Amino acid sequence: MKDFTFKLDATDGRARAGRFMTPHGVLQTPVFAPVGTLASVKSLTPAQIGSSGTSLLLANTYHLYLRPGADVVAALGGLHEFMGWGGPILTDSGGFQVFSLSGRREVDPDGVTFQSHIDGSEHRFTPESVIAIQEQLGADIIMTFDECPEPYNRAYNEAAMARTHAWAERCLAAKQRQDQALFGILQGGVFPDLRARSAEFIASLGFPGNAIGGLSVGEAKAEMNAMLEIIDPILPEDQPRYLMGVGSPNDIIEAVLRGVDIFDCVLPTRLARNHAALTRLGRMNLRKAAYALDHNPLDPECRCYTCSNFTRAYLRHLCVAKEMLAASLLSIHNIHMLITLTDDLRSAIAENRVSAFAAHFRENYQKHRPEGT
Amino acid sequence: MKDFTFKLDATDGRARAGRFMTPHGVLQTPVFAPVGTLASVKSLTPAQIGSSGTSLLLANTYHLYLRPGADVVAALGGLHEFMGWGGPILTDSGGFQVFSLSGRREVDPDGVTFQSHIDGSEHRFTPESVIAIQEQLGADIIMTFDECPEPYNRAYNEAAMARTHAWAERCLAAKQRQDQALFGILQGGVFPDLRARSAEFIASLGFPGNAIGGLSVGEAKAEMNAMLEIIDPILPEDQPRYLMGVGSPNDIIEAVLRGVDIFDCVLPTRLARNHAALTRLGRMNLRKAAYALDHNPLDPECRCYTCSNFTRAYLRHLCVAKEMLAASLLSIHNIHMLITLTDDLRSAIAENRVSAFAAHFRENYQKHRPEGT
Repeated sequence: MKDFTFKLDATDGRARAGRFMTPHGVLQTPVFAPVGTLASVKSLTPAQIGSSGTSLLLANTYHLYLRPGADVVAALGGLHEFMGWGGPILTDSGGFQVFSLSGRREVDPDGVTFQSHIDGSEHRFTPESVIAIQEQLGADIIMTFDECPEPYNRAYNEAAMARTHAWAERCLAAKQRQDQALFGILQGGVFPDLRARSAEFIASLGFPGNAIGGLSVGEAKAEMNAMLEIIDPILPEDQPRYLMGVGSPNDIIEAVLRGVDIFDCVLPTRLARNHAALTRLGRMNLRKAAYALDHNPLDPECRCYTCSNFTRAYLRHLCVAKEMLAASLLSIHNIHMLITLTDDLRSAIAENRVSAFAAHFRENYQKHRPEGT
Repeated sequence: MKDFTFKLDATDGRARAGRFMTPHGVLQTPVFAPVGTLASVKSLTPAQIGSSGTSLLLANTYHLYLRPGADVVAALGGLHEFMGWGGPILTDSGGFQVFSLSGRREVDPDGVTFQSHIDGSEHRFTPESVIAIQEQLGADIIMTFDECPEPYNRAYNEAAMARTHAWAERCLAAKQRQDQALFGILQGGVFPDLRARSAEFIASLGFPGNAIGGLSVGEAKAEMNAMLEIIDPILPEDQPRYLMGVGSPNDIIEAVLRGVDIFDCVLPTRLARNHAALTRLGRMNLRKAAYALDHNPLDPECRCYTCSNFTRAYLRHLCVAKEMLAASLLSIHNIHMLITLTDDLRSAIAENRVSAFAAHFRENYQKHRPEGT
């Protein structure tokens, strides 16, 4: 297979199992990417990330542009060499962070002027500069520059969508490297007609893959699913679809059932730092006294390093004593849990039983969960 | 070899290369033990600790008594099973922590009443309780309860030594488990006659190994070395000697040259959390701007995971961005550096060139070190 071709291996309803070729290896979809914000998945070595089953990593353009600088990463041989990760990498465009993290920001038709969240210094992103930065970083999959508005303001969403479309065309024109796949990002908030227009426009530009932005940013779950159902028939079948910033086990399942192939989220590593574990039976808060003498692993059926070697009691002790190792061991498990979920979804799609799998998963995750979703 | 026998493989001057049998494996001496204060070597999994070359781990009785409690560790199968470490473990007696960490404390002939450094709650250690706690924890090597005074107060050192001796006898009488080796601890501050008397007394009790306490606690290096020279001819040759809480590369070398076999120290992991690396050429502060584009590993001759996979520039980036991974990668390297040093000392002793090795090491460590010792 040629780089950046996407092959559908199986479908089951709207759910898809595919393969996407990249210069650093093939992605079997559905695929979940852990987040290495600053070219490091927090608390994990690349060896540990690999052993958790990860194939695709995400890194953040906004963060790496500020620290250590894209020029530094380029001088050190690009992201793969810099961080010691030989597999596929995806960088976002910084759009989301510019609108969610930075201090003051000013949007104009040409780009965005913003303040660093670290030191307040002033910076500017344009579609052209964001592509140049991502070409310096050297990920396998890169993203167009987009504006991510809050989902319920229609006027703002119309204007932001228009800018996002114009910027997508400029990103396409600015792109020079042939060994990177540029994905377009569609927006449109919670407005069905805007989502449809955005999907049509982005699809018309002929990117090798399409990304869905502006979801899982505060809207209701039912609205996210409704938007995915509008987008699904519009996007080309023979290209991967990437739902940015999602997510939780339930969100991943609902999106796979609606035709999404690629996911990323800080959830597994952030939960780990907050002493929570994702299991097939629900979330566990490891600080609970109930686990003080519990000699079971987090999930007796899980095969990750953490579940193969440590009890809930030991993990609780690490959490209560605020030992750094708690974050590493829970991150390994939480990532492995989401990777296993996408692997299981892939198998279920291949065997035409994805609806039953989803129902079974939902039931277990609801029925037994000690707390939370 | 029977458990807790010590075999001298070679000597070179006063330096010794030996083997000490434990129920969880043989220790080849000189040996350096990283510290797993709370049953976790900070930021490292047991797999990472093992791959750094570690054979012996230390855990702290005082800390584990407070969290999670020795009864919890016992209920979970003892320290080895609790923390997933299959190799030999040593626990200290809590003496040092009671005198250095806790709030108010009151010493009487029977023991010490002290306040927890965590919540101020009142607790009491006696020789008998400290042995009972260490029998619950289940390490291979355990320690007598001692009083660790500041090194320059003679009257206090005389009194503390008398208590330490009486407590050593009571620990020996209290001990029940046959699968643990109890080491006696000698004290005596910086006073040659006290050190000699303490070494004679502790040696007379017939422990399978002897520990040297109250050094590297603020006295001058020359005084530490002088004390070691007094102790060396008094302690039995056919038992291992353990210098508690040491140390730096130079301190380890000087102590090996004076007949010491076993070491432990938080230095490699604490330095790592403070973004410093130990190398054969000296300490490196990884936050320095000079490393921003440096694509060399920390030490080009080092074979640890960190040096095999990452540049100084990447490590500097992790340190500057305060990524947790910095502590893990630097800990792996720093532990590996000290383990390699003790391995190299062992080879040099076997080949009767330990003085030349020490001189060569000192010269490199002095001459090229960018900063610090």
